[in-house]
Amino acid sequence: MSFQNPVFIPGPTNIPEALRKACDMPTIDHRSPLFGQILHPARRGVRQVLKSDTAKVFIFPSTGTGGWETALTNCLSAGDKVLAARNGMFSHRWIDMCQRHGLDVQIVETPWGDGLPADRYEEILTADTSHQIKVVLATHNETATGVKSDIAAVRKALDAAGHPALLFVDGVSSIGSMDFRFDDWSVDVAVAGSQKGFMLPAGLAIVGFSAKAMEATKTAALPRTFFDVHDMAKGYDNNAYPYTPAVGLLNGLNEACTMLLAEGLENVFARHTRIATGVRAAVDAWGLNLCAASPDVYSDTVSAICTPDGFNATDIVTHAAETYGVAFGVGLGEVAGKVFRIGHLGSLTDVMTLSGIATAEMCMVDLGLDIKLGSGVAAAQEFYRLNPAARLQNAA
Amino acid sequence: MSFQNPVFIPGPTNIPEALRKACDMPTIDHRSPLFGQILHPARRGVRQVLKSDTAKVFIFPSTGTGGWETALTNCLSAGDKVLAARNGMFSHRWIDMCQRHGLDVQIVETPWGDGLPADRYEEILTADTSHQIKVVLATHNETATGVKSDIAAVRKALDAAGHPALLFVDGVSSIGSMDFRFDDWSVDVAVAGSQKGFMLPAGLAIVGFSAKAMEATKTAALPRTFFDVHDMAKGYDNNAYPYTPAVGLLNGLNEACTMLLAEGLENVFARHTRIATGVRAAVDAWGLNLCAASPDVYSDTVSAICTPDGFNATDIVTHAAETYGVAFGVGLGEVAGKVFRIGHLGSLTDVMTLSGIATAEMCMVDLGLDIKLGSGVAAAQEFYRLNPAARLQNAA
Amino acid sequence: MSFQNPVFIPGPTNIPEALRKACDMPTIDHRSPLFGQILHPARRGVRQVLKSDTAKVFIFPSTGTGGWETALTNCLSAGDKVLAARNGMFSHRWIDMCQRHGLDVQIVETPWGDGLPADRYEEILTADTSHQIKVVLATHNETATGVKSDIAAVRKALDAAGHPALLFVDGVSSIGSMDFRFDDWSVDVAVAGSQKGFMLPAGLAIVGFSAKAMEATKTAALPRTFFDVHDMAKGYDNNAYPYTPAVGLLNGLNEACTMLLAEGLENVFARHTRIATGVRAAVDAWGLNLCAASPDVYSDTVSAICTPDGFNATDIVTHAAETYGVAFGVGLGEVAGKVFRIGHLGSLTDVMTLSGIATAEMCMVDLGLDIKLGSGVAAAQEFYRLNPAARLQNAA
Amino acid sequence: MSFQNPVFIPGPTNIPEALRKACDMPTIDHRSPLFGQILHPARRGVRQVLKSDTAKVFIFPSTGTGGWETALTNCLSAGDKVLAARNGMFSHRWIDMCQRHGLDVQIVETPWGDGLPADRYEEILTADTSHQIKVVLATHNETATGVKSDIAAVRKALDAAGHPALLFVDGVSSIGSMDFRFDDWSVDVAVAGSQKGFMLPAGLAIVGFSAKAMEATKTAALPRTFFDVHDMAKGYDNNAYPYTPAVGLLNGLNEACTMLLAEGLENVFARHTRIATGVRAAVDAWGLNLCAASPDVYSDTVSAICTPDGFNATDIVTHAAETYGVAFGVGLGEVAGKVFRIGHLGSLTDVMTLSGIATAEMCMVDLGLDIKLGSGVAAAQEFYRLNPAARLQNAA
Repeated sequence: MSFQNPVFIPGPTNIPEALRKACDMPTIDHRSPLFGQILHPARRGVRQVLKSDTAKVFIFPSTGTGGWETALTNCLSAGDKVLAARNGMFSHRWIDMCQRHGLDVQIVETPWGDGLPADRYEEILTADTSHQIKVVLATHNETATGVKSDIAAVRKALDAAGHPALLFVDGVSSIGSMDFRFDDWSVDVAVAGSQKGFMLPAGLAIVGFSAKAMEATKTAALPRTFFDVHDMAKGYDNNAYPYTPAVGLLNGLNEACTMLLAEGLENVFARHTRIATGVRAAVDAWGLNLCAASPDVYSDTVSAICTPDGFNATDIVTHAAETYGVAFGVGLGEVAGKVFRIGHLGSLTDVMTLSGIATAEMCMVDLGLDIKLGSGVAAAQEFYRLNPAARLQNAA
Repeated sequence: MSFQNPVFIPGPTNIPEALRKACDMPTIDHRSPLFGQILHPARRGVRQVLKSDTAKVFIFPSTGTGGWETALTNCLSAGDKVLAARNGMFSHRWIDMCQRHGLDVQIVETPWGDGLPADRYEEILTADTSHQIKVVLATHNETATGVKSDIAAVRKALDAAGHPALLFVDGVSSIGSMDFRFDDWSVDVAVAGSQKGFMLPAGLAIVGFSAKAMEATKTAALPRTFFDVHDMAKGYDNNAYPYTPAVGLLNGLNEACTMLLAEGLENVFARHTRIATGVRAAVDAWGLNLCAASPDVYSDTVSAICTPDGFNATDIVTHAAETYGVAFGVGLGEVAGKVFRIGHLGSLTDVMTLSGIATAEMCMVDLGLDIKLGSGVAAAQEFYRLNPAARLQNAA
Repeated sequence: MSFQNPVFIPGPTNIPEALRKACDMPTIDHRSPLFGQILHPARRGVRQVLKSDTAKVFIFPSTGTGGWETALTNCLSAGDKVLAARNGMFSHRWIDMCQRHGLDVQIVETPWGDGLPADRYEEILTADTSHQIKVVLATHNETATGVKSDIAAVRKALDAAGHPALLFVDGVSSIGSMDFRFDDWSVDVAVAGSQKGFMLPAGLAIVGFSAKAMEATKTAALPRTFFDVHDMAKGYDNNAYPYTPAVGLLNGLNEACTMLLAEGLENVFARHTRIATGVRAAVDAWGLNLCAASPDVYSDTVSAICTPDGFNATDIVTHAAETYGVAFGVGLGEVAGKVFRIGHLGSLTDVMTLSGIATAEMCMVDLGLDIKLGSGVAAAQEFYRLNPAARLQNAA
Repeated sequence: MSFQNPVFIPGPTNIPEALRKACDMPTIDHRSPLFGQILHPARRGVRQVLKSDTAKVFIFPSTGTGGWETALTNCLSAGDKVLAARNGMFSHRWIDMCQRHGLDVQIVETPWGDGLPADRYEEILTADTSHQIKVVLATHNETATGVKSDIAAVRKALDAAGHPALLFVDGVSSIGSMDFRFDDWSVDVAVAGSQKGFMLPAGLAIVGFSAKAMEATKTAALPRTFFDVHDMAKGYDNNAYPYTPAVGLLNGLNEACTMLLAEGLENVFARHTRIATGVRAAVDAWGLNLCAASPDVYSDTVSAICTPDGFNATDIVTHAAETYGVAFGVGLGEVAGKVFRIGHLGSLTDVMTLSGIATAEMCMVDLGLDIKLGSGVAAAQEFYRLNPAARLQNAA
């Protein structure tokens, strides 16, 4: 097993040294005051990363998928109506989960590559005069297509329709990497995981609940125990969990928030934009297109890159792993075989990114695509050197 | 934060050095063949630890509580009848989970300190001629009272009644430390966690399903997605998970199974019995009693020790933490304040155990109990030296 | 290989978690400014631990023995006269090193168990009217016998004699654990290692040089390159080393100093005295004697314990390792077979110490000594509980 | 402090994950049998890496410089004559060490960029009919100039002259990375360090002594204690050291040898040649020259790259560190400011190397050199993809 090369999957990310050490913790008593000194700062840190003064933050030993289930089961009852657009694999899966929990999902089919259709949401919500729709789902960043959506616009759609539905936002691959505004956007439930913007191993579902979402829990009848936010809240009040917490990961989360906040969230976001722009410069130099339909929806955490018709994009991913020991992401669902993905979130530098771009180039040439070696690298180099990383400039 | 002393809570245990290192892993692509080289051996290892040739093993990024929920939601439908005895906090919580998921639990109230009443089970099952009871719950080791139960007897009760109900066993604090026989006992669902006998950090729910349990999943109507065993099974067939796995913990689990199997399960169990016997010798020397009613139900992973009437046993735990930096377990539920608990499972030696016994003595004397310093230590020393650990003898 | 039990050798000590992590560092460029940010604070930290405002601190990738050689080769020429007392194995070895480097050592044979004979030093120095003696060697803490010496008295001897000889002090097993005053005692060269009071792995020789010692280097003719303090000083001026430094250990040393200074040196010393007093209470309860002749020379970092005539003390050490997996120290040189040693320096708690005492008891009983199990433990428990650790009291 | 990017200094190298974990070890008793289970396999492993059946391997807590001193002080007496060529900073420093130890060095000044002049050695040795020359020094790989020398030719020169001088070879930056044949070349002392081919942190001097060298120790009169090979040998016979060993590093060394030998030494060497050839392709594409005069002396562990007249090559190193967080090596001594160095030894992949090449390109363009971005990367990519790494091909 070789761990020498960085990974370029859209999460889990490369883990910073300090976070590996924060997670690798000896056993402590999770019912002791010591645990509170990890738990509470971690929760406060997450709230700040969410840009919220009010969100109640809950952290489950689980993953983002568990976070979705937390959102649904705590706020809804079987038969409740949910509005959701399907524009990629992850929005698809959340919808699927709704259906498996007996919810009635009104699906807005949306081209994979497009952002969420806020205008369609507004039409539907306006038409729903009896307010049957209890929740609007919004995938902030579709990891499958490399598409970010305008959550502020979704909020505006709700407001314009004067609709009281809750707004649930999947921020798994955006929170901690791209601008996310829990309070400004009046998000009701935000869902994140440890393994993306927080740069930790997978193993935590991280959710923020608004007061309105907490209110909804009182009547929500879907069965829940493991993901019950009230059990969790009661535990937190006693420096504890309703069961055994993943203490090391929580310690890592606390440290991750400290790191992100010390850097400054706007700087973190700018850093992701900068790294992503270099990758996009390479894609452009290769003469390829992103799956994302237009620059306003380009994701800063992952780029899904379309390969020419007749070429199986998945071969790039397989070849990169086998020949160069580098991990990229395959296309999923509708875009399987049509795109490969370069994850560029979390702990990445220019230098690491250039090695990923160089590897993609070699793979494409190896597999017969008409790509000039060094072309994407040169384009990214040019961007990076003309737009040097702020922090290192200051350190000079 | 000091990590110098061992912990004496009944899980998470002290983590062996090799397992800390196995868990502390850089990011790999969890969709690559490399991941399969961790996942499949880990699952095979767990199956061997369960003493099963046939169990389907599923591992969720969760905890034992999530394992309970996995068992219930995959095999049952709302309104289904469940038989369960309540003889401690953990059996109580599993019953509570059943009720919150709309199951109809027939509860056999059992004194806290007793084992499961297999004879009562047999009477009830025999009386259930229409086979309304779908599942019998059995807590193998009640962590709250330090009581182990006879699962073979529960199986015999089912067989004597000719009853087809599924047998679900909570082995969270027994599996990997005390004898557990999935196949011999015809267990249908076994539930474990990473943080007890497997000596890892919390973060994994580990379950084994029998063929009969898998069959039951086909008609089970409780909603489930995160804990769905079919999604998980489909993932495993592709070296993958339905979502992001906790790779480092799985790597640790693989290594933990390798360690346990290399030592030999019977040796592991004997080691736990030996360490536990020393603790019980100390309790006896102190003139105190265990919560466990009789020697046949003494747990080898945790001892709940009764303190004299009028004394708050929880003070021992608080004082040990504050004054000596040592973690014991408090009493829970019915025995809160009446017992304190010494966990003695997983990675422990004579030497570590003696330090825990010595600390308990100091605390009891500090708090005014009539205990002779050194008395419990001497009793345990005498036992340990007359019954030396097999492995070290051989190494001599 | 089991790492479960604490070690009770007189160094290397148990390594605190934070120091293990500080040492376990990825490669950085040791010629970069980053390295200076480790090196210089580490050197400043050591100087504070030495209680010096003026000592020049040099840190070699070596051990305490290399520190001795640094002292000799940088300040002396072949044929130079050195005054030294031999009262244990480590003073013996330093004398041997002198002789192998062609120095003329005037040896004051001193009973093993006694401290340095400051009065004899004074007589000899007073008699040396032509100031042939260039250096006086003083072993602050004889690790072999568990004897500390009064360095202030040695300084007074020099002063009373009006003698200009340099004072070299071996503080390998005292610095960072017992009071050491470089400036107050006008020490000229102090020698320490990373693996004792600094609680790190072995691998660093740490020395402090006075201005007078630096002056002596100008005429010292013993050959030296690796241990040359001028090469080292020149390197430091450029944030560098004359060769490749042990960066991780230096990072650990920096952190170790931070920890010691944050606790407060006097608190560190008091903590060692307290732990040592508990061990001595156990020895007393066993009816045994220390090798150290009288309380004023009792070491707070290691106790050498005499066993009855006709008993081979080394058997205790062998038996403890083989049967209980615990490391004590054997007797060395003149006291080989007559004593065994319990190291009690660095990262230790009451709880860990009690486990060492309990193990020693079991070993002695196993080997037929007339010791009552639990007796030493009880004596130490009584001392520890009546004199609780300051830090934990405050944390309550 | 950021640890995200690989380093490209010519040692210490990037440390493989497995070696970081092997070094990061809890304290064990270095006088216990356990220590022998680390020490002896490590020594045997080193001997195999040296391609020797007979060398006595000694490992000091020190660095390569200490290894030089070990060689000199154990085999020579003040006034002894030594033959050495000076063709770079490291040969210069070893000569300097000789002189500081009172040895009489006949220096063959050799252009920096050339290999060792075996023919001149032969002339001088032939002329030395009275065999005054006791030792011939040979720097196998001049880390300062990226020049490897033909040690077999030096051996032939000695043989042709029928001269009995000992052959000391500095293999610090070759052993474990480039072909080294202790027995075939009749090397008498080989010197290595932990931080190059063994891919560990700095902290070990590793030396191999021939029987002839061991014989020479009997009459060698240079003073030595810390570096005395007889003290060390005596310690080894007792599973011990004459002082405290660096146990974690020795454990790492044992593991490093296991890794190198499992890969196969010829495969290790081929891997280094392959990576180095890619770097040289990039240098060629940039239109720059190596300091090494001709292909037969190109080092496979480090390339010293000449920059145009009037350009300060050190600026590249400074700029790379400050702007891109990447470490290259500066020019030293005669070639200071004229070359910068890319280390390419130890734990490196194509992908990591490409990121170093890409960074060097950006730096050179940033600093005004007429280099085309992507040009060196493309040349290296082309080489790497047409000559894929054997190991990964097989893994496919």
